[in-house]
Amino acid sequence: MTITGEMLIGAESHRGGQGEVRAVDPASGAALDPVYGGGGAAEVERACALAWAAFDAFRETGLEQRVAFLEAVAQAILDIGDALIVRAMAESGLPRARLEGERGRTVGQLRLFAQVVREGSWIEARIDPAMPGRTPLPRADIRQRHIPLGPVAVFGASNFPLAFSVAGGDTASAFAAGCPVVVKGHNAHPGTSELVGRAIRAAVADCGLPEGVFSLLFGTGTEIGTALVADPRIKAVGFTGSRRGGLALMEVAARRPEPIPVYAEMSSINPVFLMPAALAARAEALGAGFVASLTMGAGQFCTNPGILLGIEGPDLDRFAAAAVAALGGSTAATMLTPGIHAAYDDGVTALAGSGAVTTLARGLACNGPNQAQAAFFSTTAEAFLADTRLQEEVFGAASLLIRCPDAAAMGTVAERLEGQLTATLQMEAADEAAVAALIPVLERKAGRILANGWPTGVEVCHAMVHGGPFPATSDSRSTSVGTLAIRRFLRPVCYQDLPAGLLPEALHDGNPLGLWRRVDGTLGRD
Amino acid sequence: MTITGEMLIGAESHRGGQGEVRAVDPASGAALDPVYGGGGAAEVERACALAWAAFDAFRETGLEQRVAFLEAVAQAILDIGDALIVRAMAESGLPRARLEGERGRTVGQLRLFAQVVREGSWIEARIDPAMPGRTPLPRADIRQRHIPLGPVAVFGASNFPLAFSVAGGDTASAFAAGCPVVVKGHNAHPGTSELVGRAIRAAVADCGLPEGVFSLLFGTGTEIGTALVADPRIKAVGFTGSRRGGLALMEVAARRPEPIPVYAEMSSINPVFLMPAALAARAEALGAGFVASLTMGAGQFCTNPGILLGIEGPDLDRFAAAAVAALGGSTAATMLTPGIHAAYDDGVTALAGSGAVTTLARGLACNGPNQAQAAFFSTTAEAFLADTRLQEEVFGAASLLIRCPDAAAMGTVAERLEGQLTATLQMEAADEAAVAALIPVLERKAGRILANGWPTGVEVCHAMVHGGPFPATSDSRSTSVGTLAIRRFLRPVCYQDLPAGLLPEALHDGNPLGLWRRVDGTLGRD
Repeated sequence: MTITGEMLIGAESHRGGQGEVRAVDPASGAALDPVYGGGGAAEVERACALAWAAFDAFRETGLEQRVAFLEAVAQAILDIGDALIVRAMAESGLPRARLEGERGRTVGQLRLFAQVVREGSWIEARIDPAMPGRTPLPRADIRQRHIPLGPVAVFGASNFPLAFSVAGGDTASAFAAGCPVVVKGHNAHPGTSELVGRAIRAAVADCGLPEGVFSLLFGTGTEIGTALVADPRIKAVGFTGSRRGGLALMEVAARRPEPIPVYAEMSSINPVFLMPAALAARAEALGAGFVASLTMGAGQFCTNPGILLGIEGPDLDRFAAAAVAALGGSTAATMLTPGIHAAYDDGVTALAGSGAVTTLARGLACNGPNQAQAAFFSTTAEAFLADTRLQEEVFGAASLLIRCPDAAAMGTVAERLEGQLTATLQMEAADEAAVAALIPVLERKAGRILANGWPTGVEVCHAMVHGGPFPATSDSRSTSVGTLAIRRFLRPVCYQDLPAGLLPEALHDGNPLGLWRRVDGTLGRD
Repeated sequence: MTITGEMLIGAESHRGGQGEVRAVDPASGAALDPVYGGGGAAEVERACALAWAAFDAFRETGLEQRVAFLEAVAQAILDIGDALIVRAMAESGLPRARLEGERGRTVGQLRLFAQVVREGSWIEARIDPAMPGRTPLPRADIRQRHIPLGPVAVFGASNFPLAFSVAGGDTASAFAAGCPVVVKGHNAHPGTSELVGRAIRAAVADCGLPEGVFSLLFGTGTEIGTALVADPRIKAVGFTGSRRGGLALMEVAARRPEPIPVYAEMSSINPVFLMPAALAARAEALGAGFVASLTMGAGQFCTNPGILLGIEGPDLDRFAAAAVAALGGSTAATMLTPGIHAAYDDGVTALAGSGAVTTLARGLACNGPNQAQAAFFSTTAEAFLADTRLQEEVFGAASLLIRCPDAAAMGTVAERLEGQLTATLQMEAADEAAVAALIPVLERKAGRILANGWPTGVEVCHAMVHGGPFPATSDSRSTSVGTLAIRRFLRPVCYQDLPAGLLPEALHDGNPLGLWRRVDGTLGRD
């Protein structure tokens, strides 16, 4: 498969004429070929027109046809072969093993959604049979299913060039729901995006689906993304990225004549609570484990542990010393883009310069462009509560230890945190009472609460929640990882007394699809 | 139970000092006692502080305790006795039979949500067991449940002083989800609101729940509603009312530092498609049935049939003639408030004055204050498409027949409609092919599609969808009537490797609550 520098607008390959997008190898600083011509309003118009034209047909594909499509996309990505890994390495600075793992995750995610589609519970079929003899008024026959919202705009993320990008979780769950997808590719990895985009396009054609089921656009600046979200044929938005970017898309979506849902995963500092008994039992191991989580992937995870809370004392000092030792020996790692690297350096410089913050350790010095030195800071609970800037995410391997005078102060800090993707508890049995008091707060603050692990590493499964209250995401009612993500792109519709021949198959008498259905309130496979 | 003119802020009864709210009997124009003192920012602050304080305890009440509370609210409303009906009649101009029926619906709705709470599927428990031996990485134990969003602001609607007001569907579903509720009572029926509010408050106390689970505020102007939606402790909003009102609340919610979901049910003209074979078979019966639906409750239903579409010809003329005859004999009916009556008259005058619209019939003349004469207009598809003002809802018994040259024009008009609560098909077997072509359009436009009935009359059941794309509602992903309404106030949270003693009971091994749970992707009652 060749990289051409073109956008994919349905079946058409198109070179844009508005500015240029070009990837940079962050490890060398070298610009990578080809140069991508940026798109604008005209390309958005064409992609959205095709997506709209494809919607009614795509959303009524049978379950097995939808399954076949998702599996074809997965296989087509694998079929690109090593060229995909090589290009993604060059565009992201991420190592081979990580990207091979990420490809496995991406393919596994598509296949998991294929299983979800086949199982069919996402349709949430409900049937309340007619009661013609009911008094004073008879009841009509009422049947409900969920249908897709419409074409979805997906914004690829920089930090997972495969798993949260062109064929990532947003795209997979939107396809599973029956929504055509228009991707705005991330400018950091256009070649990776094009390769994956061509794989999807091949799967669309092989499965006999309308070409508008998928398009991939590139563009400089914010114009193309704004135009995409503002297009009346787009009915939902999936985004993973910065808080500023997410807020901008939310505003565009809210100002449309017809506002639409935005699922933006934006900003989280993922607090880790170091409970007293856990510190007493294993402060050194916790220090080492923390640094391993912090520096993984150059710290470029949404669930990176950005703050830690512990109660002042010798055990916390042991933890800090172990973390300082581990972090001091951590090698500098190449970040995804020069821009992300610069923002990391700015964030670290700001933290280091805050009068209320002490620099505990820095990682080993850089020996190449765009490398980040890990950073570990400390402050007091009092100072943290006094300065909301200390809650701002520094994207990368920087973390802040908050020394609390007592358990109550830990609770106070927890209560003052913004919404988070995760909250982590390092605890022993003796900490259970204190943790039990924290959990109601953490449930209100975070989408995932974990014990005795680290927040990096998000399992793609049925029970996962990768979401959380604002500003972790724009919509806490959903998750962007795991099978529940499909619900973001669905809405309920009901049919009252519709003749049997006009009802969708999922609601037919006799349950021909073998679905779980709620009949008169009772769940079963009637 | 006495009406005092006070707000109910938790257990406290409080007379506001910011302006006065006083009900008017629309049938006589007489002001009704008592005078209510309006509240403001101070009352919002106290109600929200109490709601917030109550939240963590209320949301963890056991299922049976939540069931008992919902049933206690229902019983307490019945226990008010006839005083509630008498007061609601005086404040709304609605007849006794309608309000007795509405009380039954309100009580039935609370009891239905009690069943929903007990059944427990709303928790959506999911468990992905640990796989310690998985390679290359073990899988953690991950368990998901849904928890309530937080305190909910509910705005009572004028047109259902019981079923969509203080203890209406929004309040019932929010309570069922575990959310404290702060109601802003509608100024049209403060006495009815206070009576119901006192019943809820008594149930809160009888069930041993924290007082902040429920508050009821009154106020003049928009200040109190704005303050309520802007309060950081409010986490969702339920509203039924005008488009202008809903849009204003959406804007306040979007501009908060932490944006929150707004479920506003706003505006719908509920198209009725008169298919050719149906017109041929029963034009006269359809005309009479239409007028009965149109004039029911003085036309003051969200699902009132505001437009009809049919293909030009003798059968459509027969339909129009029958409707003209029926409507011409319909008695004028008292509307809910002088303001609603004035807006209806303005809307009818504007339609009648449009050059593209013909007045086909008016109902019988008024013989008292605030009465509305029904109105029936016609226009052409071409004129309707040319003037978006003809799509604006006229709240009340006014409807517009759109004469289409052919089936294609009917489809074109359907495609140009805004989002709707309902779309109705009057059809015979011979119409099925034409209807099949319309249904994909109607699914995209409406929350409920019904055949051979009329859209007024919304069954409270499991499969009902009372919702739809903007501007019918602010959020098409939900319904405000029926059991799925509970989902509006929930969000998923997951727990990774949390010790068994700290897990919520819904996620315990052995399934002590007997819930439907999804274990490793398979639904069952493990």
